[in-house]
Amino acid sequence: MTLRFTTTATDGAARCGLVETPRGRFTTPCFMPVGTRGSVKGLSSADLEALGVEVTLANAYHLMLRPGAEVVAGMGGIHRFTAWSGHVLTDSGGYQVLSLAARVDDDGVTFRSTYDGSTHRLTPERAVAVQGLLGADIQMALDVCPPLSSPPGLLRQAVERTVAWGVRARDAHRREGREGQALFGIVQGGIDERLRAESARRTVELDLSGYAIGGLSVGESRSEMLAALAPTVAELPGDRPRYLMGVGDPVGLAEAVALGADMFDCVLPTRLARHGTALTAAGPLRLRNATFAQDAEPIDPTCPCDVCGRWSRAYLRHQLVVGEASARRLITMHNLAWILALVARIRAAVRAGTLTALRAELANRWAHLPAASQ
Amino acid sequence: MTLRFTTTATDGAARCGLVETPRGRFTTPCFMPVGTRGSVKGLSSADLEALGVEVTLANAYHLMLRPGAEVVAGMGGIHRFTAWSGHVLTDSGGYQVLSLAARVDDDGVTFRSTYDGSTHRLTPERAVAVQGLLGADIQMALDVCPPLSSPPGLLRQAVERTVAWGVRARDAHRREGREGQALFGIVQGGIDERLRAESARRTVELDLSGYAIGGLSVGESRSEMLAALAPTVAELPGDRPRYLMGVGDPVGLAEAVALGADMFDCVLPTRLARHGTALTAAGPLRLRNATFAQDAEPIDPTCPCDVCGRWSRAYLRHQLVVGEASARRLITMHNLAWILALVARIRAAVRAGTLTALRAELANRWAHLPAASQ
Repeated sequence: MTLRFTTTATDGAARCGLVETPRGRFTTPCFMPVGTRGSVKGLSSADLEALGVEVTLANAYHLMLRPGAEVVAGMGGIHRFTAWSGHVLTDSGGYQVLSLAARVDDDGVTFRSTYDGSTHRLTPERAVAVQGLLGADIQMALDVCPPLSSPPGLLRQAVERTVAWGVRARDAHRREGREGQALFGIVQGGIDERLRAESARRTVELDLSGYAIGGLSVGESRSEMLAALAPTVAELPGDRPRYLMGVGDPVGLAEAVALGADMFDCVLPTRLARHGTALTAAGPLRLRNATFAQDAEPIDPTCPCDVCGRWSRAYLRHQLVVGEASARRLITMHNLAWILALVARIRAAVRAGTLTALRAELANRWAHLPAASQ
Repeated sequence: MTLRFTTTATDGAARCGLVETPRGRFTTPCFMPVGTRGSVKGLSSADLEALGVEVTLANAYHLMLRPGAEVVAGMGGIHRFTAWSGHVLTDSGGYQVLSLAARVDDDGVTFRSTYDGSTHRLTPERAVAVQGLLGADIQMALDVCPPLSSPPGLLRQAVERTVAWGVRARDAHRREGREGQALFGIVQGGIDERLRAESARRTVELDLSGYAIGGLSVGESRSEMLAALAPTVAELPGDRPRYLMGVGDPVGLAEAVALGADMFDCVLPTRLARHGTALTAAGPLRLRNATFAQDAEPIDPTCPCDVCGRWSRAYLRHQLVVGEASARRLITMHNLAWILALVARIRAAVRAGTLTALRAELANRWAHLPAASQ
């Protein structure tokens, strides 16, 4: 096994852990900023270092189209290409492909490039090869991610295909023999709790380095999401990391950790930032609001980040209003610093056995922010 | 006099100098990055510090409309508002107003806001008041900047109005009694060498802290620009800084320094960066070019900047091609680092008495880059 997971503390079903790979180690629960095309929107890898990010997510679907997996491999892999020495997890592309209404058959997916309309084919084997070329520390098996509204037959078909593709991904991954790259399987099943449990059991049979919970955070309510998560986690082994895909809102993070999830990614903090909404201890702040035109306070007076240490709400609002890109970058920096600090608080609460109190605090503060969608 | 200029070295008409103000000091020749709306596009004031920038330019026209000069004053002035402790020079807005086809009369200018179409009035007195509210270290008097193609009558009228407005700006500046803010006058006269000399003589009679040469870099050839600059500089006193507005291409900088200019601003390095063109020792590099798709070299292998120390041409090209904002920021950082290093080389050449050799080298390398336009 190229990836080792050790539990370092627990609080009920919640746990703190340490993930060790040939690249190094990172702590869980962890939030992975999304760098779809090889950079977290607006930021550089130097910015991510300054923020203390340990793992970033990149997207195999996007990178195989632009600049091409072989190009990234030729440049020495995703780490050298992006000049980032932390961990990189690559999404297989299943989610993007499905959201683009591709043609799925038992063998794989045919889709059109969002860049030039050209036709491409992704199979479980090709997804492993692409992520191998990219040089991810953690690969994701290709999965079928059905829409929320799918009828039972389609949900069942998605689970069957995802399991079958998981077998093929595992075998391809073994054949490729890429030392140092871990492979995670993905659990599907929509919000059908029994199907979720079955999908989890059958995915665990593949004996992979870790397990992801996909197909959630696609429009369902938070309580539906958590209801589907619980029976999934119950089937997952304690000695492997559990990655809940697409969740990154404060309440969602805390509640999912309470159920035993370890790893998270979400575009929410960075997308909100680009639209001018900042995350704060007092809840979300829409910085474009005229209220802030002459507000000399930092985004969040309790936040120790560089942005809050230097710029006022008034300045950031002005930059947003006149369309300066620097505002989007600075608010992105703050939102990531803020969400990373929140996850650090969640870890500390797990260690202290006080997660329940933190969950109550967050539920109260963030009642009005809807659950994230990927 | 709130601003003191000392010559520290000369090489022919070229000179190195030290400008001292209540805020501190900066060396000349200097390049001032353009932060029109209170930030250099894509960068933060922390980035400018990291680059070693000593003076930035902000635009009174833009800031008086958004967020408003009174708002900036209420936030403690432009330095506190933007969190920038270096020098700030504010352009009066004359150039912007004129390029927006405003209505000019003997008393001032009436123009429409680019933001909401509302009507505004700028007089020499109001321009001084606005820049006073902004809290600039160096103010520019309101001037009339005629188009390159203006007939002699219009050029003459622009000179007469600019001189008359200079008197009114000086008197208003004295009445306002803002300690610590210097006021520069602006020489006009198109590319008519005799009119330039007359405009310079009459502007010098105002006895201001420094003199700017405006109305150049508006579409004329470089030789026309330099031919108009020479007789202007000949009339300017040796103990005041000379600011050539809108020039920032490598050859233009070196040639203007050779004629005795000290201060420069230009959007060229930052605008080129946003369009994907990098400045290098070997000339301009269009990073979108497919040639760079797998090029592991930094933008300029001889450049010691952070961007060249970390990212490849291939990565930056990829980020440009897929439209990631981070590429624009990183190339902007490089271009500013590069032009600041070039100006440092120009200063070193003046001190060493080797400016002629550097001019020849630059003319050879940059033969194909057209002179900058504002």
